[in-house]
Amino acid sequence: MELIREARPHGREKLRANLIEWFHWLLREAELYDVRYPVKGAYVWRPYGMRLRRHVEELIRRSHDETGHQEVLFPVFIPYEFFGKESQHIRGFEKEVFWVSKGGEEGERLVLRPTSETAIMPMVKLWVHDYKDLPLRLYQIVSVFRAETKMTHPMIRLREISMFKEAHTVHVDREDAERQVREAVEIYKKIFDEMCLAYMINKRPDWDKFAGAEYTIAFDTVLPDGRTLQIGTVHYLGTNFTRVFEVTYLAADGTRRLAHTTSYGISERSIAAMLITHGDDAGTVLPPRLAPIQVVIVPIFYGEEEAASVISYAREVEKALREAGMRVHIDDRPDKTPGWKFYFWELKGVPLRVEVGKRDLEKRQVVITRRDTLEKYAVGLGELVDAVRGLMRTVEENLRRRAWEELRSRIVRAETVEAAKAAIREGKVVEVPWSGDNDCGIKLKDLVGADALGVPLDSDASVGGFDLRDLACGEKRAEFWLRLSERY
Amino acid sequence: MELIREARPHGREKLRANLIEWFHWLLREAELYDVRYPVKGAYVWRPYGMRLRRHVEELIRRSHDETGHQEVLFPVFIPYEFFGKESQHIRGFEKEVFWVSKGGEEGERLVLRPTSETAIMPMVKLWVHDYKDLPLRLYQIVSVFRAETKMTHPMIRLREISMFKEAHTVHVDREDAERQVREAVEIYKKIFDEMCLAYMINKRPDWDKFAGAEYTIAFDTVLPDGRTLQIGTVHYLGTNFTRVFEVTYLAADGTRRLAHTTSYGISERSIAAMLITHGDDAGTVLPPRLAPIQVVIVPIFYGEEEAASVISYAREVEKALREAGMRVHIDDRPDKTPGWKFYFWELKGVPLRVEVGKRDLEKRQVVITRRDTLEKYAVGLGELVDAVRGLMRTVEENLRRRAWEELRSRIVRAETVEAAKAAIREGKVVEVPWSGDNDCGIKLKDLVGADALGVPLDSDASVGGFDLRDLACGEKRAEFWLRLSERY
Repeated sequence: MELIREARPHGREKLRANLIEWFHWLLREAELYDVRYPVKGAYVWRPYGMRLRRHVEELIRRSHDETGHQEVLFPVFIPYEFFGKESQHIRGFEKEVFWVSKGGEEGERLVLRPTSETAIMPMVKLWVHDYKDLPLRLYQIVSVFRAETKMTHPMIRLREISMFKEAHTVHVDREDAERQVREAVEIYKKIFDEMCLAYMINKRPDWDKFAGAEYTIAFDTVLPDGRTLQIGTVHYLGTNFTRVFEVTYLAADGTRRLAHTTSYGISERSIAAMLITHGDDAGTVLPPRLAPIQVVIVPIFYGEEEAASVISYAREVEKALREAGMRVHIDDRPDKTPGWKFYFWELKGVPLRVEVGKRDLEKRQVVITRRDTLEKYAVGLGELVDAVRGLMRTVEENLRRRAWEELRSRIVRAETVEAAKAAIREGKVVEVPWSGDNDCGIKLKDLVGADALGVPLDSDASVGGFDLRDLACGEKRAEFWLRLSERY
Repeated sequence: MELIREARPHGREKLRANLIEWFHWLLREAELYDVRYPVKGAYVWRPYGMRLRRHVEELIRRSHDETGHQEVLFPVFIPYEFFGKESQHIRGFEKEVFWVSKGGEEGERLVLRPTSETAIMPMVKLWVHDYKDLPLRLYQIVSVFRAETKMTHPMIRLREISMFKEAHTVHVDREDAERQVREAVEIYKKIFDEMCLAYMINKRPDWDKFAGAEYTIAFDTVLPDGRTLQIGTVHYLGTNFTRVFEVTYLAADGTRRLAHTTSYGISERSIAAMLITHGDDAGTVLPPRLAPIQVVIVPIFYGEEEAASVISYAREVEKALREAGMRVHIDDRPDKTPGWKFYFWELKGVPLRVEVGKRDLEKRQVVITRRDTLEKYAVGLGELVDAVRGLMRTVEENLRRRAWEELRSRIVRAETVEAAKAAIREGKVVEVPWSGDNDCGIKLKDLVGADALGVPLDSDASVGGFDLRDLACGEKRAEFWLRLSERY
């Protein structure tokens, strides 16, 4: 394998200048997703996008199956009587819930699930008898519905979230439930790692936790324009739901106790984050393990006499890669030029391109181009499979490394409101000293004019040795760093 | 491999006596599906049922992917303005459609899709430009909603059909669309064959075709109580939808033409049919290729000293089967007896049971029991994998053969109304002479007091040489056999 062209990655100027516009362009041009469906906040997954999504769903299923989760499927309809049982939950969701009217039975009051705690609890009550039935770990991948009043964005802010993976777990006590919270965090780390996403892990402030939770831990990523995007949440629900749904179990000591529950969710937002994080002005780069097409082969020939032998050589290359278990596509469209094809597949994010021409055929080699850096290599046929395998790993590692570098470069600290404001203006996530008091936190984010992500769980959150005051409540000693950012 | 017990399959008396009651029992006891969800016609897939369903979904995806279909995902919400465009369609569906009320935007009139023709057409209009874009074959596996006023039945008659595979295809002309109709029939045959289902293929009478179709071809199976169940439909839609949605393409000759479309669907009903068709009074039998667990290993031992060596032998057997790619489960629960476990796994339909005891360990053999016949074999460890593989094939073939024998035995002909009535009373599908006239057909089914399945496409439908009169309209010469049955 010989390097024949140095790295010269595509720029990211357009992407950074107007991220949402760029994203619309990508979704349309790469034929991933159609934003023209005639209902606000509801979009169409096109075949190429769907193939990508299927790989992500497989990753999600695998990650949950391997860790003792069982897939289930609950109905979309939730009787209002159940939906309204938990007072915090209903207060948080009632404004954004869709109701079903005509078509229901007389007197039926049904909502479309915005999340399934209140659908699952009444069944869990029937399934759980004693401590041996616990822990119970269920998940489903479904559509949920939120009547967003804010501006909707494709794949990011939806009225139908169509790839909502929601896990719901039931435990004997707080300790076991919190162990599950930590395990969920590990599962999500693994999923996002495979998507080559970088993330912060933040404990949301109390005023922004999930409606019905004791606390919420969120995964936030930073997009190239400096705004953050929540890509996953994990909730410890305590006994809030089990109390109102009377989910109890017989403990080993013969007493009847309330179970503790958790829930955690991710959605197609993670796919949006992936497309954007690895995007550039030429399109996107898909992590090789998730790409619908991992290698595209472009035969290059002049005239009919070259065509036959080059295409037949391309098929030989294709066969070798396919037999090695790779997802390969050969683009032998006669009416498109090689340049057009390069552009087309770069747009779609295929991680590796293999060019084969007459000269390659003669030398029994191919030329491989990495989508992420545009580095080119000449590779002999004998080392083809190993080289492609190695390059796929390299691309994956590079995507992950770049994402983490970008994320780390975005996080700064500020000890004054002015400095915090300046950081936000520069597209940073800023950590500011905070007492931990709710009212001060709300005042603080408003002073800075940003959103609060919460207290970091992925680095030392404690202000510790520093002698700092809460930026909003100067009379209080700062205890934590509070992360602020502009959020999508 | 030595036969050590002859076939003595479980009876089917309870199953036949009250099929729906038996089905509820099976779903509950085998922990497949929970009917206690507090919304009419909406049920819960439990983990074991969901694992089965995932295998069926994989079969469906594979069958469609292999034949040039592309998976997509459209929103649940359809604007009423689109839903109402095709006059037959809206007439057929408007009474059973759910509306979304509160939560929608001001003035928004949304329905929950009962099927997606009217969601897909406006997008297809944007995607199809010229004849080179055709044929276009799309499918999705989604929830659809029907406000059933009839009695609902788990997995069979639902208000949320949660595994609706709907394919939608677009073609240059009638000929190509009808070629697709025939291909869809072949795809469904392959799917049902793998589910070991027997089926009739019937062209529905005009009064019972899909709302908006030119004609509908249906797959009907016969359940053990003699009533039929529709398990799949294929519709030729002509230009009914493309006309109102203005889906045109530029033909090779430069003219602009209306495209022709088809749609075809199957749902979790096919899983219900599978569970029931292969059911008996002890539970069900799952077709080996679809079973979540293909082989269950039950170690049998007396006392602690036997336990260790027998369980370790069982693990050796498990490892050999797992390495051969089989889905194996070892049931080593210490608090359950072997007899209890036999009952438990027969209920759940695991196709093969492997018993290993001290004597088997000494002889380096296992005892394999077929779930379908309860035949037992002694199998040496050296031939284990081949024997299991062979027995799985045999079970599959036997399930399919039994299903077809049962179905064929159910179809009879009658040349008088009285004979037809008697046949229906005996739980038969009866073929009666029919002129082909719509009014006569409706009169005929009412005279017999049965439902019309339509004209057979899987056998000679023509009355042909026989000199028979339409049973309802004696003045008309019979042209076809019309199939009648009691339908679910």
